[in-house]
Amino acid sequence: MSARLAKLLPFLESLRGYNGNLLASDALAGVIVTIMLIPQSLAYALLAGLPAEMGLYASILPLVAYALLGTSRTLSVGPVAVASLMTAAAVGNIAAAGSAGYAAAAIVMALLSGGMLFLMGCLRFGFLANFLSHPVVSGFITASGIIIGLSQLRHILGVEGHGETLPQLLQSLAEQVAHFNTVTLVTGAAATAFLFWARKGLKALLLRMGLGDTLAGFLAKTGPVLVIIATTLASYLGDFAGHGVKLVGEVPSGLPAFALPVFDPGLWSELAVSALLISIIGFVESVSVGKTLAAKRRQRVDPNRELVALGAANVASAVSGGFPVTGGFSRSVVNFDAGAQTQAASIIAAGGIGLAALLLTPVLYFLPKATLAATIIVAVTSLIDLGVVRRAWQYSLSDFIAVVTTIGATLLLGVELGVLAGIVASISLHLYKTTRPHIAVVGAVAGTEHFRNVERHNVITQPNIISLRVDESLYFANAAYLEDYIYGLVADIDGLEHVILQCTAVNEIDLSALEALEAINHRLQEQGLTLNLSEVKGPVMDALQKSHFLQQLSGQVFLTHHQAVKALKADEIEPYII
Amino acid sequence: MSARLAKLLPFLESLRGYNGNLLASDALAGVIVTIMLIPQSLAYALLAGLPAEMGLYASILPLVAYALLGTSRTLSVGPVAVASLMTAAAVGNIAAAGSAGYAAAAIVMALLSGGMLFLMGCLRFGFLANFLSHPVVSGFITASGIIIGLSQLRHILGVEGHGETLPQLLQSLAEQVAHFNTVTLVTGAAATAFLFWARKGLKALLLRMGLGDTLAGFLAKTGPVLVIIATTLASYLGDFAGHGVKLVGEVPSGLPAFALPVFDPGLWSELAVSALLISIIGFVESVSVGKTLAAKRRQRVDPNRELVALGAANVASAVSGGFPVTGGFSRSVVNFDAGAQTQAASIIAAGGIGLAALLLTPVLYFLPKATLAATIIVAVTSLIDLGVVRRAWQYSLSDFIAVVTTIGATLLLGVELGVLAGIVASISLHLYKTTRPHIAVVGAVAGTEHFRNVERHNVITQPNIISLRVDESLYFANAAYLEDYIYGLVADIDGLEHVILQCTAVNEIDLSALEALEAINHRLQEQGLTLNLSEVKGPVMDALQKSHFLQQLSGQVFLTHHQAVKALKADEIEPYII
Repeated sequence: MSARLAKLLPFLESLRGYNGNLLASDALAGVIVTIMLIPQSLAYALLAGLPAEMGLYASILPLVAYALLGTSRTLSVGPVAVASLMTAAAVGNIAAAGSAGYAAAAIVMALLSGGMLFLMGCLRFGFLANFLSHPVVSGFITASGIIIGLSQLRHILGVEGHGETLPQLLQSLAEQVAHFNTVTLVTGAAATAFLFWARKGLKALLLRMGLGDTLAGFLAKTGPVLVIIATTLASYLGDFAGHGVKLVGEVPSGLPAFALPVFDPGLWSELAVSALLISIIGFVESVSVGKTLAAKRRQRVDPNRELVALGAANVASAVSGGFPVTGGFSRSVVNFDAGAQTQAASIIAAGGIGLAALLLTPVLYFLPKATLAATIIVAVTSLIDLGVVRRAWQYSLSDFIAVVTTIGATLLLGVELGVLAGIVASISLHLYKTTRPHIAVVGAVAGTEHFRNVERHNVITQPNIISLRVDESLYFANAAYLEDYIYGLVADIDGLEHVILQCTAVNEIDLSALEALEAINHRLQEQGLTLNLSEVKGPVMDALQKSHFLQQLSGQVFLTHHQAVKALKADEIEPYII
Repeated sequence: MSARLAKLLPFLESLRGYNGNLLASDALAGVIVTIMLIPQSLAYALLAGLPAEMGLYASILPLVAYALLGTSRTLSVGPVAVASLMTAAAVGNIAAAGSAGYAAAAIVMALLSGGMLFLMGCLRFGFLANFLSHPVVSGFITASGIIIGLSQLRHILGVEGHGETLPQLLQSLAEQVAHFNTVTLVTGAAATAFLFWARKGLKALLLRMGLGDTLAGFLAKTGPVLVIIATTLASYLGDFAGHGVKLVGEVPSGLPAFALPVFDPGLWSELAVSALLISIIGFVESVSVGKTLAAKRRQRVDPNRELVALGAANVASAVSGGFPVTGGFSRSVVNFDAGAQTQAASIIAAGGIGLAALLLTPVLYFLPKATLAATIIVAVTSLIDLGVVRRAWQYSLSDFIAVVTTIGATLLLGVELGVLAGIVASISLHLYKTTRPHIAVVGAVAGTEHFRNVERHNVITQPNIISLRVDESLYFANAAYLEDYIYGLVADIDGLEHVILQCTAVNEIDLSALEALEAINHRLQEQGLTLNLSEVKGPVMDALQKSHFLQQLSGQVFLTHHQAVKALKADEIEPYII
């Protein structure tokens, strides 16, 4: 196996030294994930407004594609809640839910998103994901979870409904709640209650019943499947359809057929922005899960190769009739906890879903939609974390504004504008802070060569020198502020001879700031003052040496601020008078 | 006069101690500016695709409004080249040039732009202008100058033509050049040649003829008016219209009628983005001129009150049938050089233009458009400064990319996309640099308490300590990078006990970065390493104290890096072994 091939296909590398024990671990994990994935796949297809079989299709080939190319050994890829909601929001603008155009648009969405991810990976654009700050991501996922949960209530009630924002959903529910269908509501409420209980209670019960820990843990994860079996059976025996309960209905049997998605430039360009947003959100979600799990086993995840792998998974989804996929949090944790060692577990799970698509679809006819809605509601409650608002409030105002903006915009304006508002708010707040940098007048800390803010520390200053520490890189957005600040400051001081800028926090001086420094130097010189710099960093000094500024500078550049003050302080004054 | 009123109307303040001498200075400057403004006003109306009288209207009331509210005593407000081009570009998307809808849209543009400027001033949003870096502004004005100059060539040739981008303009000229009109070309070429010569040669000639310096300087500024008189006379006597020369034609006589601009929500929203761009560009141009002139006389310009004053000037333009105005460079310099002491000079100039609108319009009938085009071409050559590309190239790559992007996008995609591309490019480049900060391993400079990069300086390090100086604020965009960097670094060092982050350049630690630091602290602790901080700034320490990070921190926070190294270095090693 050549090193080049191994780098291209991390999966091969993970098979080095593969043996029966590892296979057994992977096989068990694969079976558990399969059991978890069947209900989830059906449910997220429902959430995205798509036919149930598309959920299964999105859980076969994409898992294999990621398994071959991905750098995480335990990430489980497939349809996830937030991406399904975003797909519904984007595709819903193009076509009516349930129409052939709607499904075709969802497939195109997977293709576009896959192509973008793949391209971003090849161009090594993984760093772009860093512009989604933690508070923005947490806020967005929390708000999406609320929207998703509310959107499923109509299936539990058995009523019509619509809406993509909090006000629309609440209004729709208020109008429809009176028309609820009793059998649907009882089924949905019972399923929800059981699933909530099963998350913790089922394992405890099984343990009390004397089962071993491993077996009890395994059986506890079958909760969603048990609910599906029970409600499908009840629906069949009790003629739920006759009582007005909405069922999943006809699901075509068999494996997905390969097909190229529709090529329609108009449609592609309409979906492009949404596809980009889904790609970025999906990537961030997936990488953060992958990194968390990899860290637990001292493994590494490479963001740029993750982009390539997720891109391939989405293209695989598109050509096999699926919709956008990404690495999911809950399923990956299940896969990890079940003992998955390599991506062989995911390939086994893909085989399991394939079998389900071949064999189980006839019985899905009777499955009530309310059961799937219950599955979704229980799954998304783990996404909702309003604690992030409190943590941001306690820590800093700008993080708080960013998270509140994201949550508010997502709830009120929808998912796409929500995530955009969050990104724009966090970047704008960061930039805004740099336009009015903190500038400290500093003096020497007695007994050291260290200089600190005169307002916070007991320090020694010289009457003929003003020492300024500018706490920001100097660039176009704050160049004018620095000019105004220095002119205002020196105007008020008598007996001043020297201004020293301590440049410890100046990581860059761009051309606009250089022009401002030239103007400051010139203006101070007219007033009989020298401008000096101290502690200029290497990269900044390199840049300044390419300009004429250092020749024009009325003062000097000092290695340390201590040396600058020593050289410039008035002769008649003893050193370090307090 | 109450202090409150004086603050509201800076003009009143400037009249304190006003006397006959000052009035004489202002009156002379007012007359000179009037003579300069008449051809410019007509020419920029032509450039904006508007009837000539709108140029005059935009030079009466706006001057009075700015005079009363503006903080610059010498800024001259009115139609300018770049804003006129931007008006033409924006309004040309809405209506056909020359139609009534076109003129109405230009008036709405002035109103919207005025409203936005006024509002931004009231909200103290003047800092927004700082996001236009010097290279972006220079590049944009240079590219606009090229577009404007090329767009006027058709009037010099006397051909039809169109286009808003360099390729469109060149193609249009190539198609039309063969159809040139001889009389128009001779008139336009002669006018252009005379105006270029007059800029320097006329004054020199007058001085040689024995005129005094002041009188010669004054008469030299009459060049554009002389050309207008000469070509109008030639056109009248030589029946230029009969030879196919395009003339200004009927210009309604009299002062502008007050009228409210059209209220049409659809039109307003179509023009909103363009109005915002014109507002920002106009404000930046105006404030930079105002600041330059104010600095020469030790006066001050307040950006937020300038926004209010420019807003009022644009609203005044809109209600008196004008189009967007701002402070112009050339006319302000002329006003300043002519000795204007207060805004009384501008009020006198407004009166002069008013007289022109009342009395001179009948003779403008015969004025060839080629003369106005010559005026524009000569004026914009002073805007074109390709030297900024060379300066940026020499100084830094990111400034170079920003200026080239701006010039390229403006020439190829038009003014609006050009300025947007420039803003986006410069902000993106700044952010990109912060995502992969410069991180230096530092050691002590012998004989000082100062620490410097081990790769650039001859410094002393300790085998059990790694000292890192991160040259950037820690925030969401670089939190992940810092984590990866530190894990990679410590993995390769044997015998390491302590990691110290010297936080001199860390001006902020946001919530995302705090989480990264917590993860780093945790991971290092697992590896038996302590994480320490030194020289943490006051504002950053304030924030950290609101979190639990300092309690979890495995190491300590030191006042100076020197103290940190002294405390943590291995006991058995002598201090400062090289």
